[in-house]
Amino acid sequence: MSKLWQKTTNVNELVESFTVGRDREFDRQMAAFDVLGSLAHTQMLQTIGLMSAEDLQLVQQELKAIYADIENNSFEIEDGVEDVHSQVEMLLTRRIGDAGKKIHSGRSRNDQVLVDLKLFFRSELQQVVEEVQQLFTLLIELSNKHKDVLLPGYTHLQVAMPSSFGLWFGAYAESLTDDLELLLAAYKITNKNPLGSAAGYGSSFPLNRTLTTQLLGFESLNYNVVYAQMGRGKTERIIAQALSAVAATLAKMAMDQTLYLSQNFAFVSYPENLTTGSSIMPHKKNPDVWEIMRGKCNRLQALPNDIAMMTTNLPSGYHREMQLLKELLFPAFTEIKTCLHMASFMLQHVTVKTNILDDPRYAYLFSVEEVNRQVLDGVPFRDAYKRVGLAIEEGNFNPNKTVNHTHEGSIGNLGNLEITEAMINLLKNFNFEKTADAIRELVK
Amino acid sequence: MSKLWQKTTNVNELVESFTVGRDREFDRQMAAFDVLGSLAHTQMLQTIGLMSAEDLQLVQQELKAIYADIENNSFEIEDGVEDVHSQVEMLLTRRIGDAGKKIHSGRSRNDQVLVDLKLFFRSELQQVVEEVQQLFTLLIELSNKHKDVLLPGYTHLQVAMPSSFGLWFGAYAESLTDDLELLLAAYKITNKNPLGSAAGYGSSFPLNRTLTTQLLGFESLNYNVVYAQMGRGKTERIIAQALSAVAATLAKMAMDQTLYLSQNFAFVSYPENLTTGSSIMPHKKNPDVWEIMRGKCNRLQALPNDIAMMTTNLPSGYHREMQLLKELLFPAFTEIKTCLHMASFMLQHVTVKTNILDDPRYAYLFSVEEVNRQVLDGVPFRDAYKRVGLAIEEGNFNPNKTVNHTHEGSIGNLGNLEITEAMINLLKNFNFEKTADAIRELVK
Amino acid sequence: MSKLWQKTTNVNELVESFTVGRDREFDRQMAAFDVLGSLAHTQMLQTIGLMSAEDLQLVQQELKAIYADIENNSFEIEDGVEDVHSQVEMLLTRRIGDAGKKIHSGRSRNDQVLVDLKLFFRSELQQVVEEVQQLFTLLIELSNKHKDVLLPGYTHLQVAMPSSFGLWFGAYAESLTDDLELLLAAYKITNKNPLGSAAGYGSSFPLNRTLTTQLLGFESLNYNVVYAQMGRGKTERIIAQALSAVAATLAKMAMDQTLYLSQNFAFVSYPENLTTGSSIMPHKKNPDVWEIMRGKCNRLQALPNDIAMMTTNLPSGYHREMQLLKELLFPAFTEIKTCLHMASFMLQHVTVKTNILDDPRYAYLFSVEEVNRQVLDGVPFRDAYKRVGLAIEEGNFNPNKTVNHTHEGSIGNLGNLEITEAMINLLKNFNFEKTADAIRELVK
Amino acid sequence: MSKLWQKTTNVNELVESFTVGRDREFDRQMAAFDVLGSLAHTQMLQTIGLMSAEDLQLVQQELKAIYADIENNSFEIEDGVEDVHSQVEMLLTRRIGDAGKKIHSGRSRNDQVLVDLKLFFRSELQQVVEEVQQLFTLLIELSNKHKDVLLPGYTHLQVAMPSSFGLWFGAYAESLTDDLELLLAAYKITNKNPLGSAAGYGSSFPLNRTLTTQLLGFESLNYNVVYAQMGRGKTERIIAQALSAVAATLAKMAMDQTLYLSQNFAFVSYPENLTTGSSIMPHKKNPDVWEIMRGKCNRLQALPNDIAMMTTNLPSGYHREMQLLKELLFPAFTEIKTCLHMASFMLQHVTVKTNILDDPRYAYLFSVEEVNRQVLDGVPFRDAYKRVGLAIEEGNFNPNKTVNHTHEGSIGNLGNLEITEAMINLLKNFNFEKTADAIRELVK
Repeated sequence: MSKLWQKTTNVNELVESFTVGRDREFDRQMAAFDVLGSLAHTQMLQTIGLMSAEDLQLVQQELKAIYADIENNSFEIEDGVEDVHSQVEMLLTRRIGDAGKKIHSGRSRNDQVLVDLKLFFRSELQQVVEEVQQLFTLLIELSNKHKDVLLPGYTHLQVAMPSSFGLWFGAYAESLTDDLELLLAAYKITNKNPLGSAAGYGSSFPLNRTLTTQLLGFESLNYNVVYAQMGRGKTERIIAQALSAVAATLAKMAMDQTLYLSQNFAFVSYPENLTTGSSIMPHKKNPDVWEIMRGKCNRLQALPNDIAMMTTNLPSGYHREMQLLKELLFPAFTEIKTCLHMASFMLQHVTVKTNILDDPRYAYLFSVEEVNRQVLDGVPFRDAYKRVGLAIEEGNFNPNKTVNHTHEGSIGNLGNLEITEAMINLLKNFNFEKTADAIRELVK
Repeated sequence: MSKLWQKTTNVNELVESFTVGRDREFDRQMAAFDVLGSLAHTQMLQTIGLMSAEDLQLVQQELKAIYADIENNSFEIEDGVEDVHSQVEMLLTRRIGDAGKKIHSGRSRNDQVLVDLKLFFRSELQQVVEEVQQLFTLLIELSNKHKDVLLPGYTHLQVAMPSSFGLWFGAYAESLTDDLELLLAAYKITNKNPLGSAAGYGSSFPLNRTLTTQLLGFESLNYNVVYAQMGRGKTERIIAQALSAVAATLAKMAMDQTLYLSQNFAFVSYPENLTTGSSIMPHKKNPDVWEIMRGKCNRLQALPNDIAMMTTNLPSGYHREMQLLKELLFPAFTEIKTCLHMASFMLQHVTVKTNILDDPRYAYLFSVEEVNRQVLDGVPFRDAYKRVGLAIEEGNFNPNKTVNHTHEGSIGNLGNLEITEAMINLLKNFNFEKTADAIRELVK
Repeated sequence: MSKLWQKTTNVNELVESFTVGRDREFDRQMAAFDVLGSLAHTQMLQTIGLMSAEDLQLVQQELKAIYADIENNSFEIEDGVEDVHSQVEMLLTRRIGDAGKKIHSGRSRNDQVLVDLKLFFRSELQQVVEEVQQLFTLLIELSNKHKDVLLPGYTHLQVAMPSSFGLWFGAYAESLTDDLELLLAAYKITNKNPLGSAAGYGSSFPLNRTLTTQLLGFESLNYNVVYAQMGRGKTERIIAQALSAVAATLAKMAMDQTLYLSQNFAFVSYPENLTTGSSIMPHKKNPDVWEIMRGKCNRLQALPNDIAMMTTNLPSGYHREMQLLKELLFPAFTEIKTCLHMASFMLQHVTVKTNILDDPRYAYLFSVEEVNRQVLDGVPFRDAYKRVGLAIEEGNFNPNKTVNHTHEGSIGNLGNLEITEAMINLLKNFNFEKTADAIRELVK
Repeated sequence: MSKLWQKTTNVNELVESFTVGRDREFDRQMAAFDVLGSLAHTQMLQTIGLMSAEDLQLVQQELKAIYADIENNSFEIEDGVEDVHSQVEMLLTRRIGDAGKKIHSGRSRNDQVLVDLKLFFRSELQQVVEEVQQLFTLLIELSNKHKDVLLPGYTHLQVAMPSSFGLWFGAYAESLTDDLELLLAAYKITNKNPLGSAAGYGSSFPLNRTLTTQLLGFESLNYNVVYAQMGRGKTERIIAQALSAVAATLAKMAMDQTLYLSQNFAFVSYPENLTTGSSIMPHKKNPDVWEIMRGKCNRLQALPNDIAMMTTNLPSGYHREMQLLKELLFPAFTEIKTCLHMASFMLQHVTVKTNILDDPRYAYLFSVEEVNRQVLDGVPFRDAYKRVGLAIEEGNFNPNKTVNHTHEGSIGNLGNLEITEAMINLLKNFNFEKTADAIRELVK
């Protein structure tokens, strides 16, 4: 394997295998973004006189060809080539000779990787947001559809107050809007250009970093070059925190689902082919999808801590183990997208049980309702409270089981329109179209 | 101790001591916010006919008196009173009789605590942001002041490229701007009104939640009442994540400081009375403040995980251990504010060493500089690279130690103005004034 | 505040307050152990000629007097005294003059703290083990007592197979035996003498570390002095891991309890004064103790990670933030002991529900039983399986609800004797008596 | 894909792909252990009359043939076969007909997986212990070899006292002995037989669990069948804690190495082909192996937390996500073994720098030495302390740089023999030979 920094001695193979690890596997996922970075960088190099117009034309043409190959899945990192950057350079020089080597002027491997990662993360975050949006829409639909189907509401896992499927589905929808705030923060932090920071200390070339920022559709720069490098590990941790917020929402929903599917609750059910069972325990409908989702999402909840543990107490400047963060974060994107997708898939098939509250074990749910009813009729709260308590003690409590909640966010007034509006406003702030426009321009 | 839910039997004392724990201690910190919540709630109750205008006037007057007592530190939770809510109610009824009891109409303990927590967190977040802002300003000043003092830049802890104190201080300033994005997300999630969610399932009273939202200066509501309750634990975790971002910045700076204070680096120094030492080891200037800060901030970095561990896999609905989250998050605010304050305090007294790069061990820092210089003079990169490498091998490498970096964010063009502008724009988004106006109106 | 290392300048008060933190509060808990360390150290000093026999007699007499004061709770760290070590030295010199100062010969603050911590941890671990033992004994009793009361057994939270309260209580007893293996490992690691390691690099005095090891009842030494210092943080993390094992057992039991107390299960109940309720929801018996226990224990499960986050990536040698570990681990001992105690307390009052399996929802629990019955009668497994499956499908499944499990560890043969024997054997390995003998000898 | 529990409907493919995940990949690693479990289980079945002697002979013969195939790497899980258990059963029935199906009598998938995992973990733990032993031996050798080469010893990263390479290498050796205590605890907890617990509630068959315990070389049983199932997740967490102890030792050593390799320390060096560098920065010897090791080991330090996060708050009984723990723990064994191996590999090539303390920056290291020298000559400690302090202040401090430390564990008396003896005694407690004998007997 050929490396630029080798002079006379070969790095021991054991060392190489240990340090390179699974890098090539992950690099494949960054290939398209590596080419985008080079397309922008070389355009900039030409404007500051570090690349001739002729070379630029050759380089751009071939980079776009490689980009097309990647999009068509006809790109691979060849055996013996260390990483995606070397592969792209090798393809270039193979096709257009020495001009291909010039794409490295004014860059170091460090800022090349940094910009690849930022572009990759940006793209992944967009996909996560889109999956969140789909699940959100479905949850709102389910909330509206089942708004009149009542559920027992629990506190301390004790039956407490009337709730509804409208509230239950809607709660998870609204939870996703708050999660989106974190995704937005992570997106903003990601969407800044580190290119031009070189090895973390800048360059003596008169780089135009504002230009590459525009070309790559970044919102802004990581200005300070030391900070640009410091973003490694930090960006990963913050993104992981945002993913963990979505994961926490899904994990809680999954926990509810496994409980509600238990014979001791039996509030929801799914078609037989979406659960697993046993031919001699026909009642069993094991909620494997929800259990696996709960497990995967709890794993994701621990991810920010994993990243913090690997990066804390490292002084400023690059350290090689930062490369290992790819092993942690890259699969996390796939996991969260899959979990969001599976949640949508399952919920499309959910059946909710009606008339749950007819079961006498849920009668006392209505005791507070009854107190409030009397208060609204003018009885002081404490008196109404005692009166109902006494009725219950004496066995004379026969609640009216209709629920008439009207305030914002309650059973009779779910607020789904307002929640949806909040979601739409949040989505606008990502400004995905601007980025898409820049990328389209870059590769056209 | 008197509790509302007690009927005939006393809860075992052992049980009470175990379950109440340190609640009264933390409740004291929420006292002012509990009164604010009641001020808004009772105004609203009057508009929906659940409190008479006369009662409202009495209640408002006494609540404001209690608020003033709290502000003057003449409020305490008396012995035998369970929590802050009971204390406030007791004071009220002691002064104005039965009208005082009516402040609970249309509320449960759950949403009362929820709104208290949100108001408290909002206030604490504002204080954290203000401390961040002060440290940021100082870091920018230090960056500008020492922009021409060079430092070795390290990669892999190996001396690599020229850096500067301008870059070093500025990097931490810019880091704080990204941290502020997370604080902003946490603030937005916090700044929504849960009041009216009752025990997490809403109320049959015709509450006007939009009104209390406005009165308390919230930006919006937690609409769905099940979600409002679900925010317990989630809000705490997200705030902890935002604090952990700031903590990570401080911890890394502290690590750099302890290293740079070591005799093996000796890049910075502090007055003798800000370090600890030994009379027989006069060289020793133990950086205890930075070490303690590193420790406290790493502790904070683990905090989101602690909260996640305590809340994960709990089904929806209130669970009593959510109360324990106060023990985790309340002290964290104090810790991060103190750490930010101490960082500012120390940096006000830092002395940076000049002429560091005169030490011959740092000569090779300039090898890449020299390559680039030749490239700018027209030598192809690979040729310049080999030429300089050869000179070094033959012992003929005599670098020009002037650094001429001009691009955005580099030693000669730090970008501190742009970074400051980004910080200012971020600060505006918190819209602290709007909240302050609402609170002033509420207590006037 | 007077400090040994101060020569001419006073450390800034802000610095002092920040760095000393809550140290005096925690030091009070270590007072007795600090005196024990000094008792042993001074005996050793006399044997190597660094303390005269006369001084030793004076010092021993007064140290024993201070030890008695501590035991009688008449010892305190006076205002203006930095820590427990300074307080003890001050008391000594106040009473016996300069001889009191000699207790520091051949020690540094570092190894003095290390040995205090080890002695304190050793004592706390013993108390934890004793609480574990009590809970274990109670669980075995409950298991034996209720061995014939059947429960549904769940997999995937779906009702699956017959279980019993005998199995359920017994499972948690056996869990504690495995937890004890970790406590034993932590105890062994703790029970080694670091005294004599000075500041982590040893001493030019001819210390007899084997003697202090014997006097303090340690099983062995931390030989290598650099390792002795390296044990700081490491010992804490390992102890926290052992506590987290016990905590995990308690947390799982608490989760089961909150579920089984829910109206949807209703398998266990507690006297009214051990739960909290509501006068108008008389069915509600909120399991606050179990919820708080679950929360506290999950907090403890996150503790090893907190310690790791604070100590990872610190190079060898002492760092000041190690002092902060006291804030994490000291309260954890109290928490786990209290939780173990409360678990015992609650379980002494538990009532288990009988005839649970009469509820028709649990009928299918017996389908596998029926298959096995047929297999034991000679029917091939697959055939029996199909036959029972068919009966269920056709509605002809009328299971015999007697359970006849006979193998080791099953409903009819719980193995509690063997489990108890394993527990007893484990307890012997701690060899608490040897340590107690040494301490008695030291203070007599 | 054929599954036992399917009756009429196919599980949706999306569901299957989501829930099965990477199971087949990990199952391959458990194949040999699955066969061992079946060898023991079927021998037992014959003794209780659930398998005929003829069937047993057939089954044993073919299982041993499959075992040999696995050992020879000629075993694979065929496409369309769900897991290793199905693959083994399919091979058996393909070769010996219906007799092959009988291996499932008296077992459920749950306890089959449990015993496979225990056998696999036991084997992996043994390999980890063996790697620990090799690194330990090398560290002791290096400690002995370089016992007279002095190093500065640091506290607070400030130069403090003389240390030595003998101490430094030896400290990490002794650290491994304490880590072995945790590995031993994990091994003991692992080395107990869960077979016979069926789905976690035992079986109505008269299984002889003591017999399978002996046949599989387990030290004891998980008696209580509910506890046997409860061990899932718990065993993984405890093993992860033990691995994290070793990882913490390696990570700290790696941190020291990267620091000592920095030009600012330059205490150790490695051959050029074990570091990475740059042809124009010839001084650069990037310690990539140590950085990657630090990263991998810090990742491992976070692993117990990951497992706790996935399993906490799950009630007793099996949950499907427990399967995901394989994804976490299986690779961890490979990682820690590789890291231990690479540490040994690197240390075989380390060169230590001599005469480090000649550098004048390290002069004050000897101030405490000088104080002690005077004390040994009869000067009271405080007087000697002041005298040396004064000499330093006046510039008259000319230390004698010979170090004469003689006590246990100090520079001149490292205690490596005692440490080695402790290691040997610990190793004996694993009793690996007993287990190896049982397995040899089972497959012969």
